[in-house]
Amino acid sequence: MSNTATQIPYKIYLREDQMPAAWYNLRADMKTKPAPLLNPGTGKPMTEQELSNVFCQELARQELDGETRYIPIPDEIRNFYRMYRPSPLVRAYCLEKKLKTPAHIYYKFEGNNTSGSHKLNSAIAQAYYAKQQGLKGVTTETGAGQWGTALSMACSYLGLDCKVFMVKVSYQQKPFRREVMRTYGAEAVPSPSDTTAVGREILARYPDTTGSLGCAISEAVEAALSQPGYRYVLGSVLNQVLLHQSVIGLETKTALDEYGIKPDLVIGCAGGGSNLGGLIAPFMGERLQGKSDCRFLAVEPASCPSLTRGVFAYDFADTGRVCPLAKMYTLGSDFIPAPNHAGGLRYHGMSPILSQLYHDGFLEAVSVPQREVFQAAETFARVEGILPAPESAHAIKAAIDEALRCRDSGEAKTIVFGLTGTGYFDLVAYQRFHDGEMTDEIPSDEALARSLKKLPRV
Amino acid sequence: MSNTATQIPYKIYLREDQMPAAWYNLRADMKTKPAPLLNPGTGKPMTEQELSNVFCQELARQELDGETRYIPIPDEIRNFYRMYRPSPLVRAYCLEKKLKTPAHIYYKFEGNNTSGSHKLNSAIAQAYYAKQQGLKGVTTETGAGQWGTALSMACSYLGLDCKVFMVKVSYQQKPFRREVMRTYGAEAVPSPSDTTAVGREILARYPDTTGSLGCAISEAVEAALSQPGYRYVLGSVLNQVLLHQSVIGLETKTALDEYGIKPDLVIGCAGGGSNLGGLIAPFMGERLQGKSDCRFLAVEPASCPSLTRGVFAYDFADTGRVCPLAKMYTLGSDFIPAPNHAGGLRYHGMSPILSQLYHDGFLEAVSVPQREVFQAAETFARVEGILPAPESAHAIKAAIDEALRCRDSGEAKTIVFGLTGTGYFDLVAYQRFHDGEMTDEIPSDEALARSLKKLPRV
Repeated sequence: MSNTATQIPYKIYLREDQMPAAWYNLRADMKTKPAPLLNPGTGKPMTEQELSNVFCQELARQELDGETRYIPIPDEIRNFYRMYRPSPLVRAYCLEKKLKTPAHIYYKFEGNNTSGSHKLNSAIAQAYYAKQQGLKGVTTETGAGQWGTALSMACSYLGLDCKVFMVKVSYQQKPFRREVMRTYGAEAVPSPSDTTAVGREILARYPDTTGSLGCAISEAVEAALSQPGYRYVLGSVLNQVLLHQSVIGLETKTALDEYGIKPDLVIGCAGGGSNLGGLIAPFMGERLQGKSDCRFLAVEPASCPSLTRGVFAYDFADTGRVCPLAKMYTLGSDFIPAPNHAGGLRYHGMSPILSQLYHDGFLEAVSVPQREVFQAAETFARVEGILPAPESAHAIKAAIDEALRCRDSGEAKTIVFGLTGTGYFDLVAYQRFHDGEMTDEIPSDEALARSLKKLPRV
Repeated sequence: MSNTATQIPYKIYLREDQMPAAWYNLRADMKTKPAPLLNPGTGKPMTEQELSNVFCQELARQELDGETRYIPIPDEIRNFYRMYRPSPLVRAYCLEKKLKTPAHIYYKFEGNNTSGSHKLNSAIAQAYYAKQQGLKGVTTETGAGQWGTALSMACSYLGLDCKVFMVKVSYQQKPFRREVMRTYGAEAVPSPSDTTAVGREILARYPDTTGSLGCAISEAVEAALSQPGYRYVLGSVLNQVLLHQSVIGLETKTALDEYGIKPDLVIGCAGGGSNLGGLIAPFMGERLQGKSDCRFLAVEPASCPSLTRGVFAYDFADTGRVCPLAKMYTLGSDFIPAPNHAGGLRYHGMSPILSQLYHDGFLEAVSVPQREVFQAAETFARVEGILPAPESAHAIKAAIDEALRCRDSGEAKTIVFGLTGTGYFDLVAYQRFHDGEMTDEIPSDEALARSLKKLPRV
């Protein structure tokens, strides 16, 4: 199963010339492809033409391309990647020692850039194609704020306008994220807002709402469609985003290959699926081709458990129902997680690619309550010296649990997890955890049944 | 003067086996050694015995050792260094392009760890020796909070108690730094506090004071002396700290040597001098030995200009006058910079080593007003993708100025500066800058003359 670790450094850094020259399109190796996006009006698959009203042309093409295995990364994007990539693959020696586990734990750390997460990998790609198309700017939504920050950085670099609809609860709890976006010249608007028709409608129905990603998406799409020279971009869920994020998994695999290491289990937190989909891509590709029996684990919050408690069905991607329908594991597009759930991972659905892989038994999933997540985060911070984002800490929690099982069984498994980002803007949540004010907020079966009643008929 | 850059990567990472095995003690190569610390009671040089009442035994030894050129780094410290080192030496290609300068700009980035700065390099060393000596814990002061955070991390790793006196203005403006320290199990106390005699005395005299490093030092020393099993540790100024920080310069030099690059100018921000002293150490060593004509530039805030407007004299190291006297450039131990000066670099004095080098003409200095510093910070963030700490942005400002002079003169100088940390906990200051609420706060000649009147007679 596992490998003899001979002189593995604490951090494996690739050389720049080892960075991927192309993204890996996992769909090319899936026997059952993810189901197509549907036009909510006609119920027919979205065409490239229809998609390119909302998305940039090239991104619409990437969204629909289930066949091309490798898609070259344009030079300008690779140059931008060189500002903060390759990211380190870290051997968690100190955590292993603390847990007294025979397991070998590695994490791919994506937090060493000012957006504080992996989101920059797709932000620069989407901004690049918008610039190539001669657009003026882009609109988007952001939950915890990492995606909005990342897009602000990419747009600032390329000279594009950037308007970010930020889920209201995060806008209020994370004022410093707003300030970083401002440093990069972006405009941040709390969502729901009165600047869009869909925002005004949601505010009228739910005046006290703290917002949701689904709602912010509706607003951002409307804002893009209502201004010439703008398109909408999205930080997760979509096939194109997982494509760009494959850079995480490709670097991870190159680094492990350099030392002859084969993972037994790859773990990632899962909100919309961008990090997990990117991290597992090349490893899952080998599994789908029968070349590996590596296991894959999605870790989601107990407060927003789309894979573990949702249904696999076509659903609206957004609360305002302006987006195409996606076939995915979903809690229903009206589902809004409890406001005191900390951090991101608040989306009601899951990437269609990951949903299909889960449905087909290639991906496993587990949900974890947030107090255990923060406990794992603190344990990790104290021994590994990195204060993790609450999102990333979901993966840490599952990795620790697996490493403790290895301690009991004596198995020296190789565990790889994604440490997607840092928690420097999440200290209000850490404070609540330290002060004992945090609760787990697990939705009732009744609440889930209610939001699942409203799935569209397809 | 300069070098042909053939395929220099964006980031030069050393291998772990290239990390320094010993710290470099610059004093060994100084013809005029820094003046000794004096006992404020007797006026005689402090002995190792006297120093070790306050500091750990081994650190007292290092403080007084002006001869040993290389001091081995213990294995346990090197292992800790591997958690976050080697740090990258970044070629600022994007900044060069933005400035249209022929200069080659490099920065050594020390912010990729949760303390957010270079402070961890000495924190782990000092905590290690405290642990070796069988102590229960350590006390210290912190200004902007980086040092306190770093010490908390080091103490948590080694299982030591950690009590941090935090300058009141930072304690109030940076609540999240406190929360990070809490995550690492440390106790943070706003200074001046009523938990020490010296704190109570200062509060009685100046009830509205926002605190100063000099005052927090007095409290931390008193707290260490009044509990058995505790010693005081300090994050800057002292010879021992510059010794530990030489790891920055040693890595930088190894990275540059790998590509045959010789710097023309090395720039660092200077508060107490820990980062600058560490960064320049091996380069200055060559200069002192006549092997190089590299220039060195200290950049200090116009609001706290110890080198550029202070005097070179013995002074109290702390407001409470409990510490040994140090010969250094000083503004007087009563000097407290304006409270709206953002970030660190608030100490009234300067490292005796750097003071001596400045006095002897080996080190140059410049002071810069804070609004220009934040403007440089924003320029840098937008092209290099890292939001800098305000302290570090002083060095950025000077590097940009020099690169613009190169643009005018056509010189392709090689400029190296220290990017000591990230600004994620400084967003209140960034917000004030964006909102136009920031002022430069340059002390008047009269104010400086007043605080300089109270120098001790030696």
